[in-house]
Amino acid sequence: MTYNPTYLSDFPIKTLRETPSYADTPGYQYLIRAGFVRPASAGIFTLLPFGMKVISKIETIVREEIEAIGGVEVLFPALLPKEPFETTGRWEEFGESMFKLRDRKLSDYLLAPTHEEMFTLLGQEMFHSYQDFPAILYQIQTKYRDELRPRAGLIRGREFIMKDSYSFDLDANGLDVSYQKHRQAYQKIFNRLGFDYVIVSAQSGAMGGSKSEEFFTVSPIGEDTFISTPSGFASNVEAFETYDGRPAIDPKTGELLIKDGDLAKNGEPITLHRGIELAHIFQLGQKYARAYNWTVQNQNSERITPTMGSYGIGISRILATFAELFHDEKGLIWSTALSPYDFQIIQAISNDKVKETSFEIVKQLAKRGYSFLIDDRAISAGVKFKDAELIGVPQTIVLGNLIKEHKIELKHRATGSIETLTLDQLYSKFLLAGS
Amino acid sequence: MTYNPTYLSDFPIKTLRETPSYADTPGYQYLIRAGFVRPASAGIFTLLPFGMKVISKIETIVREEIEAIGGVEVLFPALLPKEPFETTGRWEEFGESMFKLRDRKLSDYLLAPTHEEMFTLLGQEMFHSYQDFPAILYQIQTKYRDELRPRAGLIRGREFIMKDSYSFDLDANGLDVSYQKHRQAYQKIFNRLGFDYVIVSAQSGAMGGSKSEEFFTVSPIGEDTFISTPSGFASNVEAFETYDGRPAIDPKTGELLIKDGDLAKNGEPITLHRGIELAHIFQLGQKYARAYNWTVQNQNSERITPTMGSYGIGISRILATFAELFHDEKGLIWSTALSPYDFQIIQAISNDKVKETSFEIVKQLAKRGYSFLIDDRAISAGVKFKDAELIGVPQTIVLGNLIKEHKIELKHRATGSIETLTLDQLYSKFLLAGS
Repeated sequence: MTYNPTYLSDFPIKTLRETPSYADTPGYQYLIRAGFVRPASAGIFTLLPFGMKVISKIETIVREEIEAIGGVEVLFPALLPKEPFETTGRWEEFGESMFKLRDRKLSDYLLAPTHEEMFTLLGQEMFHSYQDFPAILYQIQTKYRDELRPRAGLIRGREFIMKDSYSFDLDANGLDVSYQKHRQAYQKIFNRLGFDYVIVSAQSGAMGGSKSEEFFTVSPIGEDTFISTPSGFASNVEAFETYDGRPAIDPKTGELLIKDGDLAKNGEPITLHRGIELAHIFQLGQKYARAYNWTVQNQNSERITPTMGSYGIGISRILATFAELFHDEKGLIWSTALSPYDFQIIQAISNDKVKETSFEIVKQLAKRGYSFLIDDRAISAGVKFKDAELIGVPQTIVLGNLIKEHKIELKHRATGSIETLTLDQLYSKFLLAGS
Repeated sequence: MTYNPTYLSDFPIKTLRETPSYADTPGYQYLIRAGFVRPASAGIFTLLPFGMKVISKIETIVREEIEAIGGVEVLFPALLPKEPFETTGRWEEFGESMFKLRDRKLSDYLLAPTHEEMFTLLGQEMFHSYQDFPAILYQIQTKYRDELRPRAGLIRGREFIMKDSYSFDLDANGLDVSYQKHRQAYQKIFNRLGFDYVIVSAQSGAMGGSKSEEFFTVSPIGEDTFISTPSGFASNVEAFETYDGRPAIDPKTGELLIKDGDLAKNGEPITLHRGIELAHIFQLGQKYARAYNWTVQNQNSERITPTMGSYGIGISRILATFAELFHDEKGLIWSTALSPYDFQIIQAISNDKVKETSFEIVKQLAKRGYSFLIDDRAISAGVKFKDAELIGVPQTIVLGNLIKEHKIELKHRATGSIETLTLDQLYSKFLLAGS
């Protein structure tokens, strides 16, 4: 939380009036135009100052909820040697989606797409007996997947930030508990972030293991299909079982072979949805522990194989998805939870009184930890209003001619509504709010 | 700042009694044994929970001081396309120390060892006229160098965390100001971290540009040599000029050709020192702006080429260097600024009174933001004392038989001194301290 306001006259940011031709979705276009991100290469992005602030807020929420269920933070390298992935077979299994390279001594390395191998090896080193279980380790880390078709900016990128956590338990019941803890933590995270979500049955693909669910949000730019039925059942395409046993998807072409109204195995008609996958939780079971012959001592002094879960949530994808879901024809519309600032102050006219009032408002409201973006640039008020709508801070305080009467306008980005308030009314509205 | 104490009985950590044979320096050995880091491959490391906490503290101090001089945070990718580095010639110039790879479409990429190219290109996009200057952008980011001989753990690693900032100015005077700001910010950072340092003249090597200085700390495991003279002049080996014009170092073998008592160009006798470079500040000048034909408009509406500086500080190297500088034969000795916890509480005996007192101490002292590591494991008090000395938290509160008299022992890690205090004395000592 910063109490130093950001003055736009002195801040490295350029908003763009024109839509960049390379940006393929509205949210991505606005993230570029409003100065949150820039592409560095296909599917590879630079976070600009506003984007960094949103990412920090997402990370804080995720950290809080994962630590609340007992998660302990570590940080694994992105550059990893081949050997642990050879043992599990994933050096080959990931195929072309894994970035591979050689060092100067011609040893094989990879840029990790996920860290099951490394967390298992760390668990094997640290957890030797039943007293060491259960445990949850997590990291917030940069991952790499060489996607064939990067798209929608940070939604399907090749370098991206993820929180991945891993649970370690002695038996299937323990794993169920750790899995449910993560499921509930993720529900809390998405509630705090302000996302509507659907929890969808999934198969675990390259991760191995048994039970698995995905958290989807519905979006017109969605790139994955999921299926729901009237009774509330939901599944991703890979895991979906049709009434007559037909496949739901052509395994070769990826073409969808089902349509709205087809029947699910339970006899209900299905509805298809173009969603975005935001998180994925897996029961890995003993697959990885077995691969490394990891056994531990149980309470009866027997050697048993531990069982694991893996739980991922896309940090940079959440930033991008929020932009896809919450915008209008003028720009982005941030929630209080994720906005880079709580307030934008527009100095619609330029004089000492306006500057002093600006300073006074920050001083008063910073007591409650609010943060401020102040547009004090020597440009027209019209451009300032346009930029404020493009950037999308939830509330704008306009300092204009009303300042002579000690009044300001409070504009709500989401609704466009405007309140005229005295300074005292402004202070009591926000200093008392929620206290 | 966490107010939840860490209970060692429930924490994923294993301390080691034996010195790992692969660890080549004492600090690195202790970081392994005390559970701060683990090697994943040659020069590539995993940060364990204690290590993560220290890194977070270093990052906070660095962020505060760089933001205090106007730095704005961004985050560039580690995986970068070849083209910007071809333009500056550094695609070839870095030689084998640059990790290179190809994506699935056979395009050339690199893992960035440093980001001058990318910051220059961002500056070129955002800063068009004199009003946009000066500016400072920075990131805390993971970097890659394929060192021929990784050594001393995180001191010379192949994947490491750095803070790098870049200044943008209109002319040489502006660059001098930005350079001095960084020089002073770095002095503040090292003072807060508790490092003795020497600022050493340097040549800028692969970065290009003119003026350059390095911040060294003196250490017996140091891997770079610097030279000082009685009048306070200090230089690194590459930049050092001998009295008679002989080279100080054999350019082919890297062998040192000077010794203590040789004369510097100013006629003074020299002293050699085996230091660790912790930070490096450069005046890049116009090299990078010129490479991209970047010009901006000055106040006279003329096109001029901006001038840049680049300022790096090794975040993970600071963790490792601290361990090399501050340890004894029992283990690590953290400062208050960097310790993963403020206090370690040892439950030397196990009963309800001890558990309650432990809880009460945390509750009282957490008011001042202190953090706690509580050793509540079902093991002997002797092992707990040994582990506390190995981990190196600055102050240990021992709860033993004295607890019947409402007394505890306060042990100072650095001096080994022990104070017997009543609980009330403990609270007033730390609740009033510095208030």
